[in-house]
Amino acid sequence: MRGEEIIGRCRALAALSETPGGLLRTFLSPPMREVHRHVGRWMEAAGMRVRTDAAGNLCGVYPAASETTRRLLLGSHVDTVPNAGAFDGVLGVVLAVALVDQLGGRRLPFSIEVAAFSDEEGVRFGVPFLGSRALAGTLDAALLALRDRAGISVEEAIRAFGLDPARLPEARLASGVFAYLEFHIEQGPVLDSVGLPLGVVTAIAGQSRLEVTFYGEANHAGTTPMRLRRDALAGAARWLAFVERHARATPGLVATVGALEVFPGAANIVPGTVHATLDVRHQKDAVRRCAVAALLDAAERIAARRGLVVQQRMELDAPATPCDSALVSALARAVEAAGFPVHKMPSGAGHDAMILAPLVPVAMLFLRSPGGISHHPDETVHAADVDAALAAGSRLLADLEQRHA
Amino acid sequence: MRGEEIIGRCRALAALSETPGGLLRTFLSPPMREVHRHVGRWMEAAGMRVRTDAAGNLCGVYPAASETTRRLLLGSHVDTVPNAGAFDGVLGVVLAVALVDQLGGRRLPFSIEVAAFSDEEGVRFGVPFLGSRALAGTLDAALLALRDRAGISVEEAIRAFGLDPARLPEARLASGVFAYLEFHIEQGPVLDSVGLPLGVVTAIAGQSRLEVTFYGEANHAGTTPMRLRRDALAGAARWLAFVERHARATPGLVATVGALEVFPGAANIVPGTVHATLDVRHQKDAVRRCAVAALLDAAERIAARRGLVVQQRMELDAPATPCDSALVSALARAVEAAGFPVHKMPSGAGHDAMILAPLVPVAMLFLRSPGGISHHPDETVHAADVDAALAAGSRLLADLEQRHA
Repeated sequence: MRGEEIIGRCRALAALSETPGGLLRTFLSPPMREVHRHVGRWMEAAGMRVRTDAAGNLCGVYPAASETTRRLLLGSHVDTVPNAGAFDGVLGVVLAVALVDQLGGRRLPFSIEVAAFSDEEGVRFGVPFLGSRALAGTLDAALLALRDRAGISVEEAIRAFGLDPARLPEARLASGVFAYLEFHIEQGPVLDSVGLPLGVVTAIAGQSRLEVTFYGEANHAGTTPMRLRRDALAGAARWLAFVERHARATPGLVATVGALEVFPGAANIVPGTVHATLDVRHQKDAVRRCAVAALLDAAERIAARRGLVVQQRMELDAPATPCDSALVSALARAVEAAGFPVHKMPSGAGHDAMILAPLVPVAMLFLRSPGGISHHPDETVHAADVDAALAAGSRLLADLEQRHA
Repeated sequence: MRGEEIIGRCRALAALSETPGGLLRTFLSPPMREVHRHVGRWMEAAGMRVRTDAAGNLCGVYPAASETTRRLLLGSHVDTVPNAGAFDGVLGVVLAVALVDQLGGRRLPFSIEVAAFSDEEGVRFGVPFLGSRALAGTLDAALLALRDRAGISVEEAIRAFGLDPARLPEARLASGVFAYLEFHIEQGPVLDSVGLPLGVVTAIAGQSRLEVTFYGEANHAGTTPMRLRRDALAGAARWLAFVERHARATPGLVATVGALEVFPGAANIVPGTVHATLDVRHQKDAVRRCAVAALLDAAERIAARRGLVVQQRMELDAPATPCDSALVSALARAVEAAGFPVHKMPSGAGHDAMILAPLVPVAMLFLRSPGGISHHPDETVHAADVDAALAAGSRLLADLEQRHA
């Protein structure tokens, strides 16, 4: 199968939407059933046995050459964000099916399972990864009780789709699964900027999210001379400059102030209070935590110098998820053997691999996102890059075949 | 009359409010009638003839020694902002009445009129200076048609107060008025910071107000490395630092970014667009306009360096109102003669004097605002400072008496 055909399949699935005009497909929504019909057919054509687990994940199993519990898991998600592109998640599933299809019926010393996760984006219930959590055994009662805007719970949505929540334990990862591999578009501009088709993911970055507040004094903008001001926004601005400089100086670090609110927020009043968000990510937890400490320290110093008070609240401190080093090496060798330069990189965004990593060695292969565009109808992928990913995937299968022979 | 008594009168008027709990008194609201009753009585006690003009300004005239059109106008406003203090505006009226009262019936070679303007804050109709505009002859049909939140027009409010809008022409400044003097609390921290009771106002600052927008590119905060970002907020922050540095380096200039909005404004998205306000004031129009040009130039340079686009829209370009230099000199001499240091300063806020300046020489005397606090229930004034203002006012009257003898 060629990259062009894989892209065509993704575009066909992109027509299956809850909304006219733009693509939206949430957990077990009506178009999800259509996706299952299409993908299930492709799986069967590739020689796989297809089932839908109790969390609505569509799973196809390609049997091993002989009776064995050893299994390679491939997968990604088939739900989308609102106004989505055609490739986020879906490409990983379609590519995995194509990889199995390319075997042409030849059996390997392990079975291959392709999972199309029912939810990764978390759009319908506000909590992501409902699909892969079922494999990890963490789709618990609290999550099943979550309700969407229409008041329907996860459990009710599962029943409405014709599935039985009581069978969720059967969705758990089979004991013989020795690796999870996920193909995914990068959703960022790095590969495009260096002109490479593929990226071998080393880790899913850890993330700190904080709210940082600067308190000064609101004053009349006309009657308060510069030297008598305690301007919360002027202080925050100096800090923002520090955040940017510090992140630029720290390899691999991203630090973002994405939201900032000014109070009272009138053109003729010196700002008294500023609330800012801070998002810091790095593949090494120590680097990230050290950066957060340095940024908060800078906020304190800037505030003290200006008669401001700064307060911070940690809202999220999620550790990094390293990919399995042996599997990363194998994937890198496969990329090289397929004739492409190896570009190792962290993932700044979360993926299903993160959920499965505590249970099984994981690896991810990123495909270049032209323009870095994702979560947008313009999201795309080059056919040649899909070919490259397919070639690398084939090499990895060959490598695993040798090792498990 | 002592400062203590003047402060007592201001506090008595502060009890006359539209709202329980906090002071609010807008144009021709019911408590305004009570204010007229009190102030009118004090005016009469000081030997003045009292009338209310068609714009609801309470005016008391203290006759000259002999028949003459020569008249000194004193005044300020008796409306308030919401949750106001007791002295903004009101102090200038009560102090002017006390100044006349101190004459003890002795006639001068000119009459003295004290005007208690019905509206300066513009709270009820959204347009300030309705009271002094009537004296300037600029309370026109368009302003009379303005409606408050209850749908009542200025004209209807005038009628409801028992006044006749047809008689507005009679409210215009009498032809013989040779000077307008306004006492007012500073509403800023300058006099308090230098430890002086009085400030001689040299000009009411001109004001530029702009909206400045930075356009970059919204991106995923996790997947977009620092070097590939076009972060609108990071650019705006560098510009904010420049605005502050430039204003600090330019004597007498104030420049404020009081409101700032970030889009899309999510913690995990690199900001794509930032709207900022810019308020720039100086007593010299050339300095102000030059500063605005420098600040916009800096925005362009910062944007260009970062691949951002900047747009600006001028929303207000109000020229400075210089006080009359001869009257300023006379007032400064009076302050000195009363035994106080002369501190000349611009007013960063607008005042009724601004409206009357095109018609008559104006001057203003600021009284120290402890803590710089105004438009707040904690707004206050030292009794000794009121005594100082009264002494300076008496010296000015003596000076004018000699010149008009």
